Amino acid sequence: MNESASAVAVRALEDARTLVEPALREAVDLLDPRMRAIAGYHFGWLDRDGNPSPGNGGKALRSGLAIAVARALGADPAAAVPGAVAVELIHNFSLIHDDLIDRDRERRHRPTVWAAWDDTTAVLLGDALVTLAYEVIADSGSDHAAKAAKALSVATRELVRGQADDVLLESRDRVELADCVSVAAGKTGALLAVSAALPAIFAGRPAEVVRALDTFGADLGLAFQIVDDLLGIWGSTEVTGKPVHADLAAGKKTIPVVFAMDRDPEVARWYAERDSRAEASAAELDAIAERIETAGGRAWAEAEADRYVAEALAALATAGVEDDVVVALATFVTQRRS
Amino acid sequence: MNESASAVAVRALEDARTLVEPALREAVDLLDPRMRAIAGYHFGWLDRDGNPSPGNGGKALRSGLAIAVARALGADPAAAVPGAVAVELIHNFSLIHDDLIDRDRERRHRPTVWAAWDDTTAVLLGDALVTLAYEVIADSGSDHAAKAAKALSVATRELVRGQADDVLLESRDRVELADCVSVAAGKTGALLAVSAALPAIFAGRPAEVVRALDTFGADLGLAFQIVDDLLGIWGSTEVTGKPVHADLAAGKKTIPVVFAMDRDPEVARWYAERDSRAEASAAELDAIAERIETAGGRAWAEAEADRYVAEALAALATAGVEDDVVVALATFVTQRRS
Repeated sequence: MNESASAVAVRALEDARTLVEPALREAVDLLDPRMRAIAGYHFGWLDRDGNPSPGNGGKALRSGLAIAVARALGADPAAAVPGAVAVELIHNFSLIHDDLIDRDRERRHRPTVWAAWDDTTAVLLGDALVTLAYEVIADSGSDHAAKAAKALSVATRELVRGQADDVLLESRDRVELADCVSVAAGKTGALLAVSAALPAIFAGRPAEVVRALDTFGADLGLAFQIVDDLLGIWGSTEVTGKPVHADLAAGKKTIPVVFAMDRDPEVARWYAERDSRAEASAAELDAIAERIETAGGRAWAEAEADRYVAEALAALATAGVEDDVVVALATFVTQRRS
Repeated sequence: MNESASAVAVRALEDARTLVEPALREAVDLLDPRMRAIAGYHFGWLDRDGNPSPGNGGKALRSGLAIAVARALGADPAAAVPGAVAVELIHNFSLIHDDLIDRDRERRHRPTVWAAWDDTTAVLLGDALVTLAYEVIADSGSDHAAKAAKALSVATRELVRGQADDVLLESRDRVELADCVSVAAGKTGALLAVSAALPAIFAGRPAEVVRALDTFGADLGLAFQIVDDLLGIWGSTEVTGKPVHADLAAGKKTIPVVFAMDRDPEVARWYAERDSRAEASAAELDAIAERIETAGGRAWAEAEADRYVAEALAALATAGVEDDVVVALATFVTQRRS
C-alpha cells in the first residue's frame, strides 16, 4: 500500500483510541480491584505488579473501525463509543480464553494471563469482560441499545463457535477449505462485522445499511485472516514478531496449507506424519513452504484475500460509505504482506 | 416447614418450569449443533450421546422465583420469561465454569461438562451461555430490556467476583466471617437478587420496588448459602445427596467453621494442619463437627440464616409483595435442615 494510505489508517486508529480508551478504562474500573489490575495488565496499561506501564495494548483495530465507520456515516462518533468499547471487551475476553485454551504463553511480548497468573484467573477475567461488554451497551442510554446487544451477542456466539470448531479441526487429519473459511468467519469475521455494523445501529440507520456494513466487516475479517495465514508461512519476523514459518512449525492447517494439501500429496503426507516426529528443521520448513507455494497455496490465498477485500469494498459502497479513512483502514489491515 | 407450604413451593416451581423451559430450549437451540447437544446434556435434557433423557435438570429455583414474583406483582408472567431464561443461562454458565475451576467431577449424579468432554468445551460452552443470556434479554422486545441487561450484568459481575474470591480464600489460612459473607453475597446472593428484581424491571415498576425485591433476593441468597453450609456439615446424605460431613472432608472453610475457628483454637489448628495430612477418618470428622457445634458454629449459623430470611421477608413487605407463594418459596429454599 502507498505510504499516505497507511498514514491515514494509523491516524484513524489514534483518533479512535483517544475517544475509546477513556471509556474502556471506565468500564474496566467497574471490576473489583484484583480483576481490574489483571485486566489492566492484559490491556497493557499496568505491569504485573499493578504499576502503570507505558506498554502497547495492541492496535485496537475493532474499535478503530467502529469510530471510523461512525465518522464516515456522518454520525456522532461519541454515540459509537459504547459499541466500540464493547467490541474491544469481547475481543479481549476471547483472547484471554483462547490463550488459555491454546496454551499460548505470550501475547504482545508479555506472558498471557493464564501464564502470569493461573487458569482460574484467565477463565474468570474473560467471564468478567464478556459481561462488562453488555453492561456498557446497556449503560449507553441509547434507544438502540437492545438492537446493539442483539447484534453483539450473535457475533459473540459466532466467535465462540469459530474457536470451538478451530480446536476440533486441529485434531482432524482431513480438513476442507470450507472448514477453514467457516472458522475464520467465526473467529475473525464475526467481531469485525459487528464492529462495522454497531455504529450504524447506534445511529439508527436503516437495516440495509447495517447489513451492508456487517458484510463489509465480515469480508474484511476473512481477508485479514488469510493475510495472517500467509504471514504465518511467508512473513518476515520483522512484520509478524514471530519466527519465520511459525505456523508451519506449529503444524497449523491454515488456508494456504489446506489448499496445497489437496493438490500435493507430499504436503498432505508431511502434515499427516507431523505428530510422530521431532521438531522440524529450518531446512525442512523451507522445503515445505516451497512445496505449498509450488502447489499454488500462496497465489491462491493471495487472490482470495484480494477477492474478499474487493467484496468488502463493494459492500461499503452498498452501505453508501465510500470513505477514504475506512478504505485506508481496510487496506491497512489486509496488506501487511512484505 | 409445614407440608402445605412445601407443596405450594413445589407447585410454583413446576408452574414456572412449564412457562420457562420451552423458552430456555429455544434459546439453547440458537447454538451450533455440537454446543447445543452439550448444553442439552448439561441441562439434563439429553444423554451424552445426544439422545433425549428423562433426566432431572435441577430445581430451576432462580427462574421459579422470577415467575412467582411476576405473579405476585400482578404482572404478566409471560413478560417475565426472558428474564427467567436469562438467569437460568447465567446460573448454568457459572456452574459449568465453576465445576471446571473446582475440578468437580459430578453434578446431579452425572459427569460434569469438563469431565465428560474436556476443559476447552467447558470454557466455550460457558462462554456461549453467558452471551446467550444477553441475547434473550435483547430479543424480549421489551422497552425495559436495557435496564434488565444492566441489572443482569451487575449481578453477573458480582457472581464472577464471588467465585474469584472464593478460590482465593481457599488458599488462605486466616479467613474472616466478613470474607465468607462477601463470597456468599457474590456467588449466591447476586443472581437470586436479580432473579427477584427482573420481573419488576420488565413490568416497569418503580425503582424502590425493584430495589426492595433485589434486597429480598440478596438476603434470601445469604440464608440459602448458610443453610447449604450447615447441610455440608450436619446434613444427612438423604437430604444432600452427598456423604455426611462432605464439606469437612473437603476442608472448606464455610461460615459455621470460620465462626468456630475464631472461638476454638483446636478447630483452627485442625484446618491449619489439614493440607499436610492424609484423608480424615469418619471418627475424626465426627469429632471436629462436634467441636464446631460446641463452639457455637451451628447455632450461630442457624440464627444468621433465620435473620437473613426475616430480612428477606421484610424487604418483600417493603416491595408490597407479601405473597403466599413467594413466601413459601423463600421458606422452601432456606429450611432444608433435617
